[in-house]
Amino acid sequence: MFKDNDFLYIDYTSKIKDTGEVIDTTNEEEAKKANIYNPEKKYKPLLVILGEHRVIQGLEEALYNFNENEEKDFEVPPEKAYGERDPSKVKIVSLGELKRQGVNPYPNMLIRLQDGNYATVKSVSGGRVILDLNHPYAGKTILYHVKVVKVVKDDVEKLKSLLDRWFGENNKIGLELSEDKKSVKISIPKEYFLLEDLQTRKYILAKDILTYVLPESAVTYTETYNKETFKG
Amino acid sequence: MFKDNDFLYIDYTSKIKDTGEVIDTTNEEEAKKANIYNPEKKYKPLLVILGEHRVIQGLEEALYNFNENEEKDFEVPPEKAYGERDPSKVKIVSLGELKRQGVNPYPNMLIRLQDGNYATVKSVSGGRVILDLNHPYAGKTILYHVKVVKVVKDDVEKLKSLLDRWFGENNKIGLELSEDKKSVKISIPKEYFLLEDLQTRKYILAKDILTYVLPESAVTYTETYNKETFKG
Repeated sequence: MFKDNDFLYIDYTSKIKDTGEVIDTTNEEEAKKANIYNPEKKYKPLLVILGEHRVIQGLEEALYNFNENEEKDFEVPPEKAYGERDPSKVKIVSLGELKRQGVNPYPNMLIRLQDGNYATVKSVSGGRVILDLNHPYAGKTILYHVKVVKVVKDDVEKLKSLLDRWFGENNKIGLELSEDKKSVKISIPKEYFLLEDLQTRKYILAKDILTYVLPESAVTYTETYNKETFKG
Repeated sequence: MFKDNDFLYIDYTSKIKDTGEVIDTTNEEEAKKANIYNPEKKYKPLLVILGEHRVIQGLEEALYNFNENEEKDFEVPPEKAYGERDPSKVKIVSLGELKRQGVNPYPNMLIRLQDGNYATVKSVSGGRVILDLNHPYAGKTILYHVKVVKVVKDDVEKLKSLLDRWFGENNKIGLELSEDKKSVKISIPKEYFLLEDLQTRKYILAKDILTYVLPESAVTYTETYNKETFKG
């Protein structure tokens, strides 16, 4: 049994119940088997902070009832996954109009509309195209297979988990938590000084630390420049 | 007599020798009189670091031979100001072509060409337009009236001058120089955390400090977040 603000690492695979289609997985072999392998993605356990609402609602709710190392299957109904289907989001548009936008539609094609929304092509006939603007998984019950592989209890370990989340594993960022836990010192090495979104990552990391780990702390970033910084 | 890396504040007015046209001035009254007053601009002495090459070459060279509070007039030839005129940069283009680009040219108009360069319209006649791609002040001798109003000698004052340059006067940034001058601590208050180019300003400021003031120092920025940072 877990509670708000607990840090869990989970392995999971999610599938559409009706079809068995694999949506997502943290397991590289599963991804390859399901033909959704992405070489850009790192297949590794996912950090979930309970109460953060970064994962599908039904998955997060189920996690409260796990124990460490427990492995379970469960299903999540549409309203706690990708939402119910909204029939009013099915529209008929003219084939000519889509072609003018540079789209040559065929059934099951996922297209991006000019307003930025995505739609699935349901059918093309007689110069008319039926588009479905619902999320492709709307109305679907999702099957989850989940294992809680690790629970992070130590505050310093929690801080490291957040560092990994925002700066990647194997980052070279220094971390120091004072004895009284009132002060977190994070030193950014020069490799990161020209990272375009450094300021944003620091902002979000500090917010996560103060929200989920040490609300009463001060998080201080330091960045040190010397003449070596500007060489080569 | 000044030398490389000296920090001077100067008041100046520059004019085209031929015509007396005022190009630029640090004096608000002069700017208004010359009809070049810009309400967005702060009229105040300009920081010049000798050897930095941020101002017109002939002006910088002349400044080495000033004394504090000295006020002088001198002229700068084109090759040490805006360059010689290059006659091959005068081109004939068709009036129709410019109109297609949305430009309706008239003599002395400054226009921006599609390649990003600026040009001055010299004449328009018979469907042909003569454009001059030289800098408007190329080939001109420039008259300077300059006063060195202040020389910054103290290292902390130099650091403050650089802070003013990159973060504006009246900035709330904290500054601390250690006794042995090996360490400069700059604390950035939360008002600046979401400044889009904060990281760039910090980078350039550190570079200026290490180049012109304290080459052997370490410049350390600190930014502290706590729960107050994210309120309101």
